[in-house]
Amino acid sequence: MPRYALKLEYDGRPFSGWQRQADRPSVQGAVEAALARLERDLPSIAAAGRTDAGVHALGQVAHCDMAKDWDPFRLSEALNHHLKPHPVAVVACAAVSDDFHARFSAQERRYLFRLVSRRAPLVHDKGQIWRVGHPLALAPMQEAARHLLGRHDFTTFRASLCQAASPVKTLDALDIEELDYPGGREFRFHVRARSFLHNQVRSFVGTLERVGAGAWAPEDVKAALEACDRAACGPVCPPDGLYLAAARYDPSPFDT
Amino acid sequence: MPRYALKLEYDGRPFSGWQRQADRPSVQGAVEAALARLERDLPSIAAAGRTDAGVHALGQVAHCDMAKDWDPFRLSEALNHHLKPHPVAVVACAAVSDDFHARFSAQERRYLFRLVSRRAPLVHDKGQIWRVGHPLALAPMQEAARHLLGRHDFTTFRASLCQAASPVKTLDALDIEELDYPGGREFRFHVRARSFLHNQVRSFVGTLERVGAGAWAPEDVKAALEACDRAACGPVCPPDGLYLAAARYDPSPFDT
Repeated sequence: MPRYALKLEYDGRPFSGWQRQADRPSVQGAVEAALARLERDLPSIAAAGRTDAGVHALGQVAHCDMAKDWDPFRLSEALNHHLKPHPVAVVACAAVSDDFHARFSAQERRYLFRLVSRRAPLVHDKGQIWRVGHPLALAPMQEAARHLLGRHDFTTFRASLCQAASPVKTLDALDIEELDYPGGREFRFHVRARSFLHNQVRSFVGTLERVGAGAWAPEDVKAALEACDRAACGPVCPPDGLYLAAARYDPSPFDT
Repeated sequence: MPRYALKLEYDGRPFSGWQRQADRPSVQGAVEAALARLERDLPSIAAAGRTDAGVHALGQVAHCDMAKDWDPFRLSEALNHHLKPHPVAVVACAAVSDDFHARFSAQERRYLFRLVSRRAPLVHDKGQIWRVGHPLALAPMQEAARHLLGRHDFTTFRASLCQAASPVKTLDALDIEELDYPGGREFRFHVRARSFLHNQVRSFVGTLERVGAGAWAPEDVKAALEACDRAACGPVCPPDGLYLAAARYDPSPFDT
């Protein structure tokens, strides 16, 4: 069967997460329902990251197998037509070889987390940014983030229901930039790793926010990491600001 | 009565526009309802721009008169509390003198229009950006925009129901910038004038989009302006991408 890679954007709010569930709306279910309007009896699709409820995507990558040959542009247009009115869009589509697998071929995942500090409630980005009402200091958050880089046992920053075989992962980047935001300040966390544990990014950001607020010292994050104890983690932050930004493949299916 | 200036953000989608109406939701009605939770029998509020249905604001300015003296920060916090769950937020509040009038003291209004060219439907900015599916060329739009600058009879770009005393206005700026947008290109129109006619910005952008798409030549916009005829206007674009960005006062009430 000809295989296609799909780059997807979605708003996670109406969904219980990526993964198809029997009785709740999911992103996978929405995409599979759109595919089913094109051809019958297609196999399940797979994705680079199984995002949680309320988590968004700018560059989720999935693959699908079709019975017929499709021009990739026509396939993306047909899927976008049938995806309406769900907040899911195919932003790129490419034919790939049979050995491409959106989950197992991915060499890196990138997440973006948007956090805004301002007093007024959010209007235009409500549900798409996590807002806190107090000021945050960038430099202590950056100092704390450096303790997390590299290969570690990340048990502290892993949901208790995480199904990964090992809590040992390598964090390649956790860069934080500060930007202007109307009436406040925005902090963007750019996080890169080959793979992530369940709730790892939200555990990082929730803990680093405590550092930015002055409740934790940067060294407290080092101690929490070394404790290898879920109870040592700061509060897990809400999903509002979390985006699966990209998945990297070598070669990239979307170069053409 | 002590007077306060309020800087407001709002998402225009659920509202029939700024202006209070008997039986439809309005931004003015939402703000006045929040004020009524603080004090009874307050006078109506006034605003710099009476935005239409679906038009958003980043920096609408309104003024209100209170019976009691309020600390401006506490007033903004109380209003934001009572404005929930409406997508309206007070992002700044300041005490002003009795001769400050949000509408009549404004020396300039600034509008932002966000237009994106990409094939895929919008996900994260749906309703907040106008999307077209075809490419747009920046330079011809910029060339056409220059014909509109300065003092003109703008009858061509004025809604037939416009109530302004005169169609003669001075357009101080219509700058267009092109930016990256995921899967496409974004064009931001920055428009400045002392005051605007009804539908003027949407008439400009709808006409300039035709130039960017290659359907109109830049000189056609000059001819349309000189026709002083509503029928010579291009299509009026949807409100999705239009934001009242700021109102300028001298001195600014929000400097402190």
